[in-house]
Amino acid sequence: MTEKILDTIGSPADLKDLSYEQLERLAFEMRAEMIAATSLHGGHLAPSLGAVELIIALHRVLDCPRDRLVFDVGHQAYAHKLLTGRRAQFKTLRTFEGISGFPKITESEYDAHDSGHASDSLSTALGYALARDLDGSDATIAALIGDASFTGGMALEALNDIGRANTPLIIVLNDNGMSISPNVGGFSAYLAKVRMSSQYTHLRNQVEDAFNASGTLGRLLMRGGNAAKESIKQFVLPGATFLEGFGVTYVGPVDGHDIQTLEEILRDARELDGPVVIHAVTVKGKGYGPAEQNPALFHGVAPFDIATGKLKPKPNSDPTWTQVFSDELAKLAEDDSDIVAITAAMAGGTGLSAFAKAHPKRFFDVGIAEEHAVGMASSLALAGKKPVVAIYSTFMQRAIDQAIVNVGLQKAHVIFCLDRAGLVGDDGPTHHGVFDLAYLRMIPGMRVLAPSNDEELRAALRCAVDLEGPVAIRYPRGNAPVAKGPCEPWHEGRAVKIREGADGALLALGRMVGIAREVAETVAEHGIELAVWDMRWAKPVDVSAVCEAARTGHVFTLEDGAITGGFGSGVLEVLSEMDVNCATKRFGIPDNFVSQGSVDRLFEELGLDAPSISAEIAGSYRD
Amino acid sequence: MTEKILDTIGSPADLKDLSYEQLERLAFEMRAEMIAATSLHGGHLAPSLGAVELIIALHRVLDCPRDRLVFDVGHQAYAHKLLTGRRAQFKTLRTFEGISGFPKITESEYDAHDSGHASDSLSTALGYALARDLDGSDATIAALIGDASFTGGMALEALNDIGRANTPLIIVLNDNGMSISPNVGGFSAYLAKVRMSSQYTHLRNQVEDAFNASGTLGRLLMRGGNAAKESIKQFVLPGATFLEGFGVTYVGPVDGHDIQTLEEILRDARELDGPVVIHAVTVKGKGYGPAEQNPALFHGVAPFDIATGKLKPKPNSDPTWTQVFSDELAKLAEDDSDIVAITAAMAGGTGLSAFAKAHPKRFFDVGIAEEHAVGMASSLALAGKKPVVAIYSTFMQRAIDQAIVNVGLQKAHVIFCLDRAGLVGDDGPTHHGVFDLAYLRMIPGMRVLAPSNDEELRAALRCAVDLEGPVAIRYPRGNAPVAKGPCEPWHEGRAVKIREGADGALLALGRMVGIAREVAETVAEHGIELAVWDMRWAKPVDVSAVCEAARTGHVFTLEDGAITGGFGSGVLEVLSEMDVNCATKRFGIPDNFVSQGSVDRLFEELGLDAPSISAEIAGSYRD
Repeated sequence: MTEKILDTIGSPADLKDLSYEQLERLAFEMRAEMIAATSLHGGHLAPSLGAVELIIALHRVLDCPRDRLVFDVGHQAYAHKLLTGRRAQFKTLRTFEGISGFPKITESEYDAHDSGHASDSLSTALGYALARDLDGSDATIAALIGDASFTGGMALEALNDIGRANTPLIIVLNDNGMSISPNVGGFSAYLAKVRMSSQYTHLRNQVEDAFNASGTLGRLLMRGGNAAKESIKQFVLPGATFLEGFGVTYVGPVDGHDIQTLEEILRDARELDGPVVIHAVTVKGKGYGPAEQNPALFHGVAPFDIATGKLKPKPNSDPTWTQVFSDELAKLAEDDSDIVAITAAMAGGTGLSAFAKAHPKRFFDVGIAEEHAVGMASSLALAGKKPVVAIYSTFMQRAIDQAIVNVGLQKAHVIFCLDRAGLVGDDGPTHHGVFDLAYLRMIPGMRVLAPSNDEELRAALRCAVDLEGPVAIRYPRGNAPVAKGPCEPWHEGRAVKIREGADGALLALGRMVGIAREVAETVAEHGIELAVWDMRWAKPVDVSAVCEAARTGHVFTLEDGAITGGFGSGVLEVLSEMDVNCATKRFGIPDNFVSQGSVDRLFEELGLDAPSISAEIAGSYRD
Repeated sequence: MTEKILDTIGSPADLKDLSYEQLERLAFEMRAEMIAATSLHGGHLAPSLGAVELIIALHRVLDCPRDRLVFDVGHQAYAHKLLTGRRAQFKTLRTFEGISGFPKITESEYDAHDSGHASDSLSTALGYALARDLDGSDATIAALIGDASFTGGMALEALNDIGRANTPLIIVLNDNGMSISPNVGGFSAYLAKVRMSSQYTHLRNQVEDAFNASGTLGRLLMRGGNAAKESIKQFVLPGATFLEGFGVTYVGPVDGHDIQTLEEILRDARELDGPVVIHAVTVKGKGYGPAEQNPALFHGVAPFDIATGKLKPKPNSDPTWTQVFSDELAKLAEDDSDIVAITAAMAGGTGLSAFAKAHPKRFFDVGIAEEHAVGMASSLALAGKKPVVAIYSTFMQRAIDQAIVNVGLQKAHVIFCLDRAGLVGDDGPTHHGVFDLAYLRMIPGMRVLAPSNDEELRAALRCAVDLEGPVAIRYPRGNAPVAKGPCEPWHEGRAVKIREGADGALLALGRMVGIAREVAETVAEHGIELAVWDMRWAKPVDVSAVCEAARTGHVFTLEDGAITGGFGSGVLEVLSEMDVNCATKRFGIPDNFVSQGSVDRLFEELGLDAPSISAEIAGSYRD
């Protein structure tokens, strides 16, 4: 059995003496490890497969951690993890107490920031570059960013500022023409034009000869002092004029799987005295057939069989919250032609694909652009449409100002459908959707609905469409509990009592309603009879339900959101306003960032599972 | 006395029959009205003076409100207000119950959205355009956006999506080379290059002749089918390649004060079957000498003398909160070379100009780019610097995700200095900084400081710089109360009792501390002795102070932030966690958007002034 080259790599320094042949072998071995690890626990396989050679070339040229390599989103960083001393733990990827699926500063000195949300790498890299300049260091700062992230507002703001700062900074644009699904937008079309122009290669060669520049970068740049050369450059290198509009030098496109050429360009680029974008074209899923053929499926893939590329059967065959939403929205949209749907590059993840197929003219995928998505929704609503903005709770954090000013202030009837609310599990702290109750509650006029099972979600969505003004429905990742039958219609600010009990009351929201039922049954075995309320509305809170609950003398609130300023605080506010004195205890996500792992495991860890809550409540009655 | 042409304009339709000579006269009259009104109450004079001809031309070509004219920020819209039936109320601009300083949908059917925050006009316009397409209408949708707003992330996201949508939409880029202070960034440098190239005009003429296109727009576009023409177009019209990278047609630059040419181009533009950017060059402050000479001062100007252009003496000569911050930061920065400062196009407004002058290498104006500002601050902090991000509370709403993920999760020692927190007065609901306590409190590890006078702000800033991890200081617009002497140093989570009293306790934050003192004195006249606490920290709340206060049996919280999820809710959370029963009453901004007017007037209106609060508290003791 031959030794693997990967066995010899303890840190990026060990890459430096390898031949290009050995590096190719290494890339193959790394892909095999990634495929093996993600087949077990799932993960961001396709993006990471596409970036292997880019990361090898970057670590050959850079001297990290003195130099800084910043990953956008971080879902392409698995090769980086394997090269920076985390190979032994690699199979614990995304598991409880295992290594993160994203770069994380507390995990390795090679990780420059906690990645997770798109489009923040350029700001991060510029901050490091400015600090370097202040320190008088000559460290190289590089960012690796996908073409989809490149169109997010934060990245474009940073690009503009990088033009101002005009300090050395290497931006590697990893262009695979895909985000999670195929990209959208003018910039994307533009890159496609750059990539695909057959004219381009032909003319580039001519011009290269003509200007006879030296060095790999020189050949690509074709820098020239006079206007004629500039003009020809713009003709030949269409990407140049776009990016140089921001004040950044453009180089490319180059083959993102050609380590040697990438290295040469990177070595030249680090000698430049200003910012440069290297446009590298890669294949998402590269090196694993099933992922190359279906990069969207293998973007963030569930456990799969390596030989066939087929997903392993799911332990739970109940429909997911996403599927229930998708199905109900499709039904509503059949009868109501004013309903339109908006996604920010998440048509599949949010369940809007079905709507898109049935009503393509009423469906808008705006790309990674949450701010714009919400702003656009507001005027669609003012113009009489009923925009459904389906977005992950954690990414909605990008558009809170727009929810306040464009939607809230204008009382626009925008229907936010926040998927992946609460804890999301393996993706960890950047992806948990735990702040939405707090940031939505503060917006005047916003209604916040949290259904507890599949039928409740259907009813909540029907109610939300029929309301006027701003409204948000939040629901978790994973399978929705299946209701035993149809549910009562939703009425604004009205909760439902689902269990009687005179010794205290559990006021539960969303997924916590099922847990509250279990808790009530458990503590009943200790002779404590608790009422259980499905509160349905985090805002407005049902005042009469809270007052009735308070008459038991003990109110317990249960939510899977941040406890600071969340639903339970809303209950406290009601009690204060109604001048009701009552012992209260709030269960929710504590005032800390929550780590990764299965949702069940995290609930246990936080004491939010039924046994923990039951024990705590029963104990409080004994005291 | 000759009749004014403006007297004959009841609606934009009345513009249609005027000659260009009459329109020029009209523009002059409108400028006079704007100068008169803003000289009384202040306002956004310079931007509005610069956009008079643009707005006349737009209303000549458009048929509003059937067509839609969307203003970015809206501080350039005074001419629009004068032309759309609001001339009689124009002198009430920005006053209590007067007309808004920004477009507002509840004020006029001619206003397409509630403007106020930069960079949202393109999203709004696209939403209207998509609704139009769904309705099968042929209405024209236009957006008027300044060059500074154009570099905000939301606008760039929208621009990219407008390229995707590829539906008719007119974007007028009002380029005066200024935002509030001179613009920064690569894009700005690029526009300057476009404007200033002498080569440009010369070559444009040559190419126009050569291609012999017809029509004003045709001449400017020089559309051609083959690559050679494209190449020449890119050489001659540098703006084209940048914007066409987003998939939008570019026309310009044109003189933004030439009504006739603007009209011709707009008429051609509305016939296009896709989106177009018309790049108009204007002079900020046009037509009023003092404003042309000092456009930054006259951007959002205080009341001034028309003849001299000099600001009227301020009624209160105490230093503003901004000045105190500016002064103390400058002192701290002398001794601590790790302190760096970041602003998003608000160096003057936030008081960072002094720092910028003293430490130009440590000062970064990133332009209108709050998301990027906070992202960049996080890595500066990780690299060992102490970034002070000075930003208006209301604009910080744009960067909440970055405060959570980039700052909070990474425990980065970023010092947010949130100016204009609480009610800001005349700018109204888009500008009040009332949500910060709620959205900052929810972030794990965030500390939120609210000083009550000038010395407290100095001490709070010193404390914030010495802490580790994320920290925010919030302080209001206007004059800071002057302390009678130096204050006690700040310690994390420790409040200060400033008055004894056994009948109840006022827990006050920031500017409400002064009001709490007054209230205590007033109710003491009724025999009610209230303790007063300067709570200092909205997070972490001083638990021992709250418990001590609760022992009086009556806790009153006072804050100038949104009462839903704010500081008072934090006090309720502490009482619940400590299992303390106590009657509580929270005073703060109610769960509604607050209108415009002087801050004192708004406080009265909301019952948050000392007499109102005193009366309510005294009444509660009588009940």
